Parts: sequence; structure tokens; C-alpha cells
Amino acid sequence: MAIWDDIIPPEDLKMFSKAKMGGKSSYGKKPAIIVVDMTYGFVDDAFPKGNSEMGWPAVHSVARLLEKGREIGAPIFYSKGAHARTATERGRWKSEKTFDIGSFDPKEYEIVPEIAPREDEVVVTKTFPSAFFGTSLASMLVFHNVDTVIVTGLVTSGCVRATVVDAFSYNFIVVVPEECVGDRGTVSHKVSLFDMHMKYADVAPLAEVIEYLNSNRG
Amino acid sequence: MAIWDDIIPPEDLKMFSKAKMGGKSSYGKKPAIIVVDMTYGFVDDAFPKGNSEMGWPAVHSVARLLEKGREIGAPIFYSKGAHARTATERGRWKSEKTFDIGSFDPKEYEIVPEIAPREDEVVVTKTFPSAFFGTSLASMLVFHNVDTVIVTGLVTSGCVRATVVDAFSYNFIVVVPEECVGDRGTVSHKVSLFDMHMKYADVAPLAEVIEYLNSNRG
Amino acid sequence: MAIWDDIIPPEDLKMFSKAKMGGKSSYGKKPAIIVVDMTYGFVDDAFPKGNSEMGWPAVHSVARLLEKGREIGAPIFYSKGAHARTATERGRWKSEKTFDIGSFDPKEYEIVPEIAPREDEVVVTKTFPSAFFGTSLASMLVFHNVDTVIVTGLVTSGCVRATVVDAFSYNFIVVVPEECVGDRGTVSHKVSLFDMHMKYADVAPLAEVIEYLNSNRG
Amino acid sequence: MAIWDDIIPPEDLKMFSKAKMGGKSSYGKKPAIIVVDMTYGFVDDAFPKGNSEMGWPAVHSVARLLEKGREIGAPIFYSKGAHARTATERGRWKSEKTFDIGSFDPKEYEIVPEIAPREDEVVVTKTFPSAFFGTSLASMLVFHNVDTVIVTGLVTSGCVRATVVDAFSYNFIVVVPEECVGDRGTVSHKVSLFDMHMKYADVAPLAEVIEYLNSNRG
Repeated sequence: MAIWDDIIPPEDLKMFSKAKMGGKSSYGKKPAIIVVDMTYGFVDDAFPKGNSEMGWPAVHSVARLLEKGREIGAPIFYSKGAHARTATERGRWKSEKTFDIGSFDPKEYEIVPEIAPREDEVVVTKTFPSAFFGTSLASMLVFHNVDTVIVTGLVTSGCVRATVVDAFSYNFIVVVPEECVGDRGTVSHKVSLFDMHMKYADVAPLAEVIEYLNSNRG
Repeated sequence: MAIWDDIIPPEDLKMFSKAKMGGKSSYGKKPAIIVVDMTYGFVDDAFPKGNSEMGWPAVHSVARLLEKGREIGAPIFYSKGAHARTATERGRWKSEKTFDIGSFDPKEYEIVPEIAPREDEVVVTKTFPSAFFGTSLASMLVFHNVDTVIVTGLVTSGCVRATVVDAFSYNFIVVVPEECVGDRGTVSHKVSLFDMHMKYADVAPLAEVIEYLNSNRG
Repeated sequence: MAIWDDIIPPEDLKMFSKAKMGGKSSYGKKPAIIVVDMTYGFVDDAFPKGNSEMGWPAVHSVARLLEKGREIGAPIFYSKGAHARTATERGRWKSEKTFDIGSFDPKEYEIVPEIAPREDEVVVTKTFPSAFFGTSLASMLVFHNVDTVIVTGLVTSGCVRATVVDAFSYNFIVVVPEECVGDRGTVSHKVSLFDMHMKYADVAPLAEVIEYLNSNRG
Repeated sequence: MAIWDDIIPPEDLKMFSKAKMGGKSSYGKKPAIIVVDMTYGFVDDAFPKGNSEMGWPAVHSVARLLEKGREIGAPIFYSKGAHARTATERGRWKSEKTFDIGSFDPKEYEIVPEIAPREDEVVVTKTFPSAFFGTSLASMLVFHNVDTVIVTGLVTSGCVRATVVDAFSYNFIVVVPEECVGDRGTVSHKVSLFDMHMKYADVAPLAEVIEYLNSNRG
């Protein structure tokens, strides 16, 4: 049973099967965890782009993952957005086009305290969907000799997926613990998980990923 | 009426509306056309990853777009894959893991003749989903002072979407003429069009895009 | 007379001439100015990596350039470093290997007030030599449809040169106003100017660059 | 005694010493070798950009390095240029501006047979100075879990240096075996070696690098 079973029809599955897609990868020996955009702005309904229903459960799952990751010493990276002061910094996002210096709630870009980064963990600030684009994330993963990235956060069909595609393109092995991601739309969520599992990543239960981390303690 | 109307439920639409996503961009003044992976391997059922049902109609639509693009002198770029001779060149694609020097049909990586590149048009060879990743495409768009990219090709939820996300991240205005893209799965196709239209690009009818090109003749 | 005349011997010049290198480019129509790392740490002798002798005169030249750039509305971008809190953020720089949270002078990473960025100008924070690597600079130049970048700052053979090589690789036309750059070593300075002028950029007198900007007012 | 001793004056050295630059890195555990642009066009006087005097000795040194690298199973990557068929593919190189389909000697872009790539070694084709820019080189190094890159080839102040700066920016440990690189100008050669050794890489005798490889056999 996969989360996308109720939405991907058999004729579609047949085409992916013909292409020999999906299947299971072998995880690597040096994992890192990436926590994408788990700021109030995406986690919580109180903000225009937030969805509490999927956001908060994902936060609690990420908290469990981080606990194990820290225990075994896996490097942990966060991404978050920042308030655009000017049109130049904002780019071409199709959401609300306004940006006005001063008038925003800084909480929107604050990582929720339940999974706050520790002093020795790096937070990259980004403008675009992927946590790799316009940041030093790839370089920092190389610095730690990482071969496997566990991608979590919000939202599945947006910044998580873009981060997964880039991680895959840099030839990292990519794992997405299903409970650790969420979206504002259920269909976008499920279909992005399906697409990623077919082509770029292993979508796996959190328990399996924690077990994997457990077996990779340095 | 949008192609995704039968699959995105009202509760999802409500969340995107709350986020003020979707809507219409203003096209720019200097468009380029990108034709992603329209090789036999993706266009035609005869190959494992091909889907004739969506592939060939997309080819015919792209042919119409290219005719107008060439008429007005818009720069045109193609991407295509190449046979991986070694594991190093192949990376971590989850489809069939084999690669054996010699034993493949070169037609798989041949752009279909109906929309073959002309002598003065550039074809970038790529390994990963995005036509930007590991290629000089961004540099060549800058060379032509392009501000708007029209992304076409195969497959919507794979290389097209990855190319759209990167074009958006480079701050190009992105347009996807709906008839000019296709996928191996209908759900992945529709939902990727929806996701892209909400956040990164204008998904528009081919007729509108041709009209836009027509009004941008140098 | 070029600044490198006293250091590049005739036999070397002969080889570059054989390769048909050097020569003059045509500037473009939409210039931007990039000010690389003009923080106290590089400008001023008081800091280990600073060199007042070349730093301060460069500051005054950049001030003149910015005045003209602002007058004609050219987009202006700054880069600067940031204190590395951890080994991960520091990377593999061969200078002093220490980094200790708290114990540094924030002035080191402060852009000198004589050329301070205005509210509407963007400052990118970077870790590596090039102002493009791990930043959104390329995207922001595309956003403004820039075709020509005027690269200034410190140090010529380090972050300026790396920025020039990347700007060139993105296919921007690159201009280096000679008085607007400086280094900690005179030989590194002169030879980098020579190398860049041979291959990637026009090294030109500030007066010529100001005249060019003057003729490009929107 | 360093190769740059006769060209870098004591006052310059004093500034680098004040900055605590230079010094020795610790090599890593998983080295790869990169051979930059060792095609006839750069190796041999017969071509406009070639310099036999430095090119051929570098070829013979690289041959020795490759022998050891292959013996221990280090991944080996080559870069080379390609004939630009159009202005778009050529970019903004300041050397001879012509490009005409058909009229060039393919030997110019042929890697010299003395160090020809083997079937299982990857050659990336590039347009710009760095072997990383617009190629999948970073991804392929990640695929092999490489932590150290040994950069060789032509020319020191051009494509070698740009490759070194990018390798450094991706946080690989960078080593340049002095005998394995060459340039068209002696001053550019020496000063680039100096600059790289101060900031980004260890410039080391070939014998030391071979000894290092010898101690890293899997």
C-alpha cells in the first residue's frame, strides 16, 4: 500500500512499469538530513501559505528523525526563506506580488521551535525552490563527504521536490521519509511523492529511515 | 476550464487560493524556446520510456511553435540525453540499472525528424532532469539576452518540470504551452501542470503562446 | 602603457599575440555594477587580510563609479563574507584555520561607509571566492536583463578574478575598471589584470567606464 | 625554493604572511585526477594557442601521474573544448572572434595520445574555463565519494586555475602537481601557482603527489 494508490490509475502504473521505474535503492554510508522551510509561514494555517493539517504532524516526525540523526552525528542542514525587501530579491514567484519593507511578520520566516537548529547546525537562506539553488548546500555536503541525503520539510510538491531533484542531480542517494513532508494540497502531495519515488528518490516510512540511521552510527 | 480540473479537489484549490498562488504573468520582450528530450526514446511506445499517445501529438504542437519561433528569429535550444557508457555517467536514475557499452539503439537518443534542430540551433546533451543542470543553457540564454523561456517537450513531470523550476530560479519568465508537453502518466502530467501554474510558470494554450510570439517579432 | 608592462616579458606577450588574445570588446546596453568584498577586513591594514595601500584608493574610485551608476539607474550588487561559526561554514580556505564563535570583530565584514549599499541595493553574502558561487547573483542579473557587468573590489587575484571568470562563463560582457580593484600583492594584482584582459574581460581606465555608463542612461 | 621565488617580491610575501595564507593542507582519503584540456590545441606550438615548451613536458608528467592513479583505481576525468559552430556556442572569449562551420582542424580538440582516456574514463566537453562550469563534473565526483582532486593540464592561469577555484568552492581538497601544468606565459604560470598555493590548493612536486596516491590504494 502506497499513499498514492488511490490517485494513480492502473494505466499510468503500467507505463511506469514498462519504463522499469520505481524500485528500491541501496542507502549509502554517510547520511545527512535536510530540513526544508519548516518555518511558521509554511507550517501553520495562520499564514497565507501555511497548512497546519499537514504541517504540524510533519514537524513532529522531523523532530523524531532529528533526534536519531543527532544521536549518530549525522550532519543536519536547514533551509528557510527570507523576506524580500525589493523586487530584485523576490524574483518571479507567482504568489502575491507585493513586497513592502517593514510590513511583515518575522515569525513567517522563523523555524518552529520544536525542531529549532542547534548552534552547530547550518541554516541556509534561499530565494528559490531548491535548497541547493543559490546556496552553498552542495559544497557543505561535499565537506562532510555525504553520500545520502534525507530530505524532509515543506512543501512536498514545491521546495522539497526541487531539493530532491537537485540532490539527485548532484548524485546523492535521496531518501524521503513520508511522514516528514507535507503540502498545502493533498493531490500535489501524493503525486509528487509518487513521481519522486518513480525516478529520483526512495519514499520510505520514517521507521525505516530511523532504522537505517541507527545502523550507520560512526 | 483547466486540464487539472478533474483531479484537483476544491479543498486543495482553496488552500492555493488562500496562498494567492496561480494567476497570470506578463510575458517578456525577448523569448527563447526550449525543446526538452523529444527523442524517440520518450516520444514513442517502441521504447521502454516512450508514450506515443502523448508524445506524438506534443511533437506536432512543438512543430507549429517552432515554425513561428523561427519566423520571428527567437533562439531555439534542444536538450537530449545520451547513452551512459559507465555507471559514472549514469548516476542514480531509478529506472533500469543496466548500461552496457554498445548494446543500445542510437535512435533512442535521436530527436524526431518532424522537429529536428537546424544547423544554427544548439542541442545540449544532459544527464539529469533539468536542461540547465550540467549544461551551458543558462549562459546561452544570457548570451541572447533572453527574458522569457517557452518550455516544451517530454516528460511534463520529469525533465520539463525540472527545467521549468531551474528557468524560474534563474529569474526567466516561464511559459508552458499545454499542448507541447506530455508524460507517460496522465495524473503526473495534469498535476505537474497544475503545480507549475500555481507557482513557477504560466501554463497557456499553444494558440496564446503563438500569438505572443507573433507580437514579439524583432 | 598597461599596468602589467613592467612584469610581463616580451616572450610571454608574443605567445598571447600568437593566440590572438587580448583586444577590445564591445560593451553592452544594460550594465550592472558588482562591488566585491569591500569590507574593512580587506580594505584596511588593521585586519590581517587587509591592505590599506591599495584598498582605500580603490574605495574612492568605486565611490565615483557608484555615483555615476546610481545616476543612470544601473543595478548595483555587493558581495561580502561572513564570520564562519563552524568548520562546515568555513570550507577549505588556506588562511588561518581557526574559527571560534563570538571572538571576532564584526567590523571585519562591514562594507566601508564611503561606499555603503543603499536600501534598494542587494548585498549577497558568500563563502567562496566568486560572488556567483552559492549565491543568487546570476539570477538577479537575469532579473534585470543585464548584459554587461562592471566588476570592482578586492582582491584582484582572488574574489574579483573568480567573479570575473564566472561572469564571463555566464556570458556577460565583463569590464574591470583598473582603479576600482586592489590586492594584497602587487605582482598578483598586475598579473591577474593581465590574465583577465587577455581572456575574459576588458581592463579599462575608470574614466572610460564612467563615460560608457554616461552614454547608457535609460 | 618555490617556482615563484624569482617573481614575487618580499613586500608581497610579507602581506600574504600577515594574512596567514599558504601553508600545507592534509590530503584526503579518496582522490580523483582531473586532466584539463590536454588537447593538441593547447599542448603544441603548431596551434595558435599551444605552447610546446611547457605543454609536452606537462604531458609526460601527467602520464606518470595517470599510471599511478590507474594502478590504485582513482577515478580519472578529462575535460576538453569543442569547436563552436555558432556564436551562441562560442560565448565571449576574447581570442580570435571567428568561427566557421567546417574550417578547423579536429586535431585541435583531440587529447594527445600519450595520455589518451581509457574506455572507462569520462571526458567532459566544456565551453568555459572551469571544467565544472556547465558540466556534470561535480556530480561525478560526488558519485565516487571523492574528497580530494588532483588538478593537472593546461593552461595554469586559465582553465586549470578556474577548475581549481571551483573544486575549492565545492569543498574538495585541491592538489596541483607542479610538473603537470603549463601555460603560454611563464609569468602567468608562476604567479597563478603562487596565488593558488596561497589560497585554494597545495602546489606540490609530482613525486609527493605520486607518493600520496601510493599510500591511498583502496
